[in-house]
Amino acid sequence: MQLALLGGTGDIGEGIALRVARGTDHAVVVGSRDADKAADAASSYADTLADHGVDADVTGASNPDAAAGADVVVLAVPAYHLTDTIDAVADDLGEAVLVSPAVGMKRDEDGMQYNPPGVGSVTQLAAANAPDDVPVVGAFHNLAAGRLADLDADPDWDVPVVGDDDAAKGTVTDLVGELDGLRPLDAGGLGNAAEVESLTPLLINLASNNEGLHDLGVKFW
Amino acid sequence: MQLALLGGTGDIGEGIALRVARGTDHAVVVGSRDADKAADAASSYADTLADHGVDADVTGASNPDAAAGADVVVLAVPAYHLTDTIDAVADDLGEAVLVSPAVGMKRDEDGMQYNPPGVGSVTQLAAANAPDDVPVVGAFHNLAAGRLADLDADPDWDVPVVGDDDAAKGTVTDLVGELDGLRPLDAGGLGNAAEVESLTPLLINLASNNEGLHDLGVKFW
Repeated sequence: MQLALLGGTGDIGEGIALRVARGTDHAVVVGSRDADKAADAASSYADTLADHGVDADVTGASNPDAAAGADVVVLAVPAYHLTDTIDAVADDLGEAVLVSPAVGMKRDEDGMQYNPPGVGSVTQLAAANAPDDVPVVGAFHNLAAGRLADLDADPDWDVPVVGDDDAAKGTVTDLVGELDGLRPLDAGGLGNAAEVESLTPLLINLASNNEGLHDLGVKFW
Repeated sequence: MQLALLGGTGDIGEGIALRVARGTDHAVVVGSRDADKAADAASSYADTLADHGVDADVTGASNPDAAAGADVVVLAVPAYHLTDTIDAVADDLGEAVLVSPAVGMKRDEDGMQYNPPGVGSVTQLAAANAPDDVPVVGAFHNLAAGRLADLDADPDWDVPVVGDDDAAKGTVTDLVGELDGLRPLDAGGLGNAAEVESLTPLLINLASNNEGLHDLGVKFW
């Protein structure tokens, strides 16, 4: 399988790239609006993986080139770049599954707050903007990027997965299940994405307000 | 300290009553609109505690009588009974701290969804309806009532606590910290309550959708 990480030079993209490259035999393509920047990031990730004894298949490309030929395309971009990123690759998605990990948040005097778009959630915004035949799945919303990208860390976190297309959701669930330290959980349909995304500002607030807690993820039990 | 659980005959009230009575030396008063029903529940809880070797101070009263003299008053009622319950005890709250664990939810074809009131969260609705000099703290939103009320279960769950009054928040935080299996965490001000409440429908959906998971709580790490 081939995985493209659009905006994969950012922190959440790095963590997913490293863990997929280490834990699976899937090819990883780091995408960016700037192909050179993507190539540099891919090279840096390959070095990190080599330091951990992993000879990884990680390359870089422009976002459209990364999307072309990929089976799973992750929108590892901030929420405010979501729709323009989808537009830029819409003709290259083919039969890919599109994965949305982004969360809309705003900061006020109380800390971080969930700030969803009018359609209810960022994941639903991705679905509304994706080509009709491209299924969208929400996943990877609730992961602390720094700890995810630290291959010496063992996070043991849960990854709620939402989607309306069972096959696409199964593909993403299986992918998450291949990664060390992450357990995929079925959190329902796209209509349940807001509850998953809301968890991210809570994680940030808890890390900010409680001594000894940082880079938080979540475990349900 | 004296703790009143308004609507304490319900499932979340039972769990809090049992764990406070077992884990602390605080007096617990179970409140209900029907004083006889409250007395019956208190008697039943005392029996359960006796079965676990605990000689507990658990009594029952009408909601206003339960609130009168209590240091901490928990609104252990469904969200749709929140404001009328506050109105019924408003003159009896004295210097008490009011605690709101309720969550507004609705069920649709996707499962449970967060359904906050116009002020942003149920906890903020409690604050808006409480007498001006009564501080409101949000806590106990994310606990599976059945497992909480099973004194043989060891939940090891986190309890995000929100509030704008530091002293009141400290009182509730200390109370949670006294209970076996629960860790209080500072989740910010009342303006952050929606993110805490949103977690509850997610917990219900995860338990509903994933084999082997039920009666879920959450651990942040």
